[in-house]
Amino acid sequence: MRTYIKDLELKKGEEVIIKGWIDIRRDQGKLIFFDFRDMTGKVQGVVLPGSLAKETAEKTRPEWVVEVKGKVNERPEKNRQADKQNGNIELEILEVTILSQAQEVPFDMDAEINLETHFDYLPFTLRSEKTKDVFKLQATIVEEYRESLRRQNFTEFQAPAMVGGDAEGGAAVFKVEYFDHKAFLATSPQFYKQIMVGAFEKAFTVAKIFRAEKSMTTRHLSELTQMDFEMGFIKDHLDVMAVLENVIRDVVNISVEKHKDIFEKNAVPFPKVGKKFPIFTLLEAQEIIEKEFGGKAVGELDMEPEHERQICEYALREFDCDFVFITHFPTKKRAFYSYADETNPELSKSFDLIFRGLEINSGSQRIHDYNELIAKMKSRGLDEKKFSFYLQAFKYGMPPHGGCSTGLERLTMKMLNLPNVRYASAFPRDMNRIDNLLSE
Amino acid sequence: MRTYIKDLELKKGEEVIIKGWIDIRRDQGKLIFFDFRDMTGKVQGVVLPGSLAKETAEKTRPEWVVEVKGKVNERPEKNRQADKQNGNIELEILEVTILSQAQEVPFDMDAEINLETHFDYLPFTLRSEKTKDVFKLQATIVEEYRESLRRQNFTEFQAPAMVGGDAEGGAAVFKVEYFDHKAFLATSPQFYKQIMVGAFEKAFTVAKIFRAEKSMTTRHLSELTQMDFEMGFIKDHLDVMAVLENVIRDVVNISVEKHKDIFEKNAVPFPKVGKKFPIFTLLEAQEIIEKEFGGKAVGELDMEPEHERQICEYALREFDCDFVFITHFPTKKRAFYSYADETNPELSKSFDLIFRGLEINSGSQRIHDYNELIAKMKSRGLDEKKFSFYLQAFKYGMPPHGGCSTGLERLTMKMLNLPNVRYASAFPRDMNRIDNLLSE
Repeated sequence: MRTYIKDLELKKGEEVIIKGWIDIRRDQGKLIFFDFRDMTGKVQGVVLPGSLAKETAEKTRPEWVVEVKGKVNERPEKNRQADKQNGNIELEILEVTILSQAQEVPFDMDAEINLETHFDYLPFTLRSEKTKDVFKLQATIVEEYRESLRRQNFTEFQAPAMVGGDAEGGAAVFKVEYFDHKAFLATSPQFYKQIMVGAFEKAFTVAKIFRAEKSMTTRHLSELTQMDFEMGFIKDHLDVMAVLENVIRDVVNISVEKHKDIFEKNAVPFPKVGKKFPIFTLLEAQEIIEKEFGGKAVGELDMEPEHERQICEYALREFDCDFVFITHFPTKKRAFYSYADETNPELSKSFDLIFRGLEINSGSQRIHDYNELIAKMKSRGLDEKKFSFYLQAFKYGMPPHGGCSTGLERLTMKMLNLPNVRYASAFPRDMNRIDNLLSE
Repeated sequence: MRTYIKDLELKKGEEVIIKGWIDIRRDQGKLIFFDFRDMTGKVQGVVLPGSLAKETAEKTRPEWVVEVKGKVNERPEKNRQADKQNGNIELEILEVTILSQAQEVPFDMDAEINLETHFDYLPFTLRSEKTKDVFKLQATIVEEYRESLRRQNFTEFQAPAMVGGDAEGGAAVFKVEYFDHKAFLATSPQFYKQIMVGAFEKAFTVAKIFRAEKSMTTRHLSELTQMDFEMGFIKDHLDVMAVLENVIRDVVNISVEKHKDIFEKNAVPFPKVGKKFPIFTLLEAQEIIEKEFGGKAVGELDMEPEHERQICEYALREFDCDFVFITHFPTKKRAFYSYADETNPELSKSFDLIFRGLEINSGSQRIHDYNELIAKMKSRGLDEKKFSFYLQAFKYGMPPHGGCSTGLERLTMKMLNLPNVRYASAFPRDMNRIDNLLSE
């Protein structure tokens, strides 16, 4: 019967069997020390002189997979490490069975390595505590995103990845050879979640989307995970923002509750959510930036990365909040389905959510009137015939609605202040890399 | 303040505001009757003679989106419909505000229509109760699949959809123009979940996969949702099957608990899970089929669809169970990473799970030894260089492990005995259709 390493401290004085990887081996002549690792943590083991396990133990190396029979001993007072998992016990190794061998590892698992090396050796580097922690946190984020929306009566659906047209005509799109036809990879589940408002009123999806932009910045990926929701019968974009704020608060609270240790190990403060996320129009934000940080901002049609950082700095100082909503982006800069503000149609009922200096979410109220949508498409030079499937939703009666998308990798990245969004994707794809570097 | 339609019976005698779609309008001269629909259900409304709402009410048609102010009246005894939602109340309509108009609907929403028409008008047909029920159930299936695995200590991860090679060389694969390179759409998250065993031991993903088979059967889709898990430190395939059985039992139990009404409306019996899912080797199953149903089965290398139906019929009769495990498929018929049985290497430690006559899951123990895996790839004519990323996981020590994949759409289909798997995909893709029929 296997004992998980996290449960060893409950078994003091007992004989147990653990299974896992050899994390570290230190041969000190008479004594051989090991750190063993399983999915629940690490423990130190020691082969004492004369142990029957000695011969096998001497053969083993890091990353060999073993089954170990041992006795859980309390460490002498002077050897205890109070702040470390299993720091007050040690496994006296009685028997080692080799389950699987490993070749020499390319570098020490916890070594500081550069980004390219990290991804070249991903099946190995994914095993490091630092990397695993990122994806443990990510699993919690996506789980709680869904849970929070379910509590708010949203229904999950599966959005398609392959689409028939380069619908929005904006983002660069990947082409697929689809039998004797051309298809495309979705740049957003937008149309499908709007269609789902007709069925469920409140719908969400966690979907892969694909961006063929020739960009190698620290914030772009070719394939990413988007967490999208869309809801009907809203008054305006503020209703959408309220749901999103609930979701983000839930995600942050649960992440901190479950993974306090991960934030601490990464020396990253818990995300601050303030009493309420501050909301500024783009113009208000720009005025604040000019006043507080100097330079020129008013008149820009979007937020520069530098301005995103500055408005977050301001919000943290004034509102004790790492999140800021920016609303009312110029209508012409947003997607055709964005709803113009009745009081000034040049501006849209749109918003971005910025977290620690990075836009992690974008949303808006949408046009719900069929004729208005057609007129808008024409004014943008879009061919309505190519949108006939999507337009059915509006032809057959669509309530006022809106929604937004959160980038899972960007949110993960900023939670832990990772230097590059690639570190927040388990298997990142970019212009130069799909698993391996692309060569031919 | 909006009242949801499901809560109206708590508001007898009160004035309320509901929002939703006009489901049906019946103009009876003096009286105009409506069925209104929102995300929580339906209710009958009536415009009485002399009502101020009359003029607006007369303009409206099915699928118009409205806000209705009304009074919740108890129906007279003779008009009550005990078995219907809100069958004992009626909304006396006081005011109707039109939120959104609709064009004439193409056909009655609950009409029996053929498959092609259903998908031609999907943004409309998704609104029918019958269709919504399918995707409500599907949302529960996928949620509980995840929940059950989390309770069993699995960690979720996001598997990639774009891959660098046509890895397994088996299933037909879609090509993607990837910047100046070629990429492919994943036919399975197999390699990635195996890599994740190295990190988390127990990992799962719900991933889109893509199959370019030129197949138009009732059980094939070009894009589908696969629910995959993989686990380390197993003894053999039976450990994987035990976890899967737990998951399926949880999914069935929660589905029945939450959606009793959907099974009843569809006149489909609740899936039977017996005391334990019966397990037969392929040979045993074939012998049973020959004995019980006649004909020839022994010697076939896989289960014919007809035989899958027969073994399920047998399992239901003898074990009161709609699920049957079949194990020990010929090694040469399974993927290269399948683990051969030590007692007879011609047969693999593999299994399928058949549900109501259809294979919904396939899995196995996997080869975990690096050298054995290389040898197996060579014997299959696979170029190990193309697998260098994947092979790192094995180079650096991999425990005995195994896993399996469940097709979400197939499981949904069989839960409700739908005649075609397309009905279990919200936005199905096949050779001829991506939303619209493909023309050019």
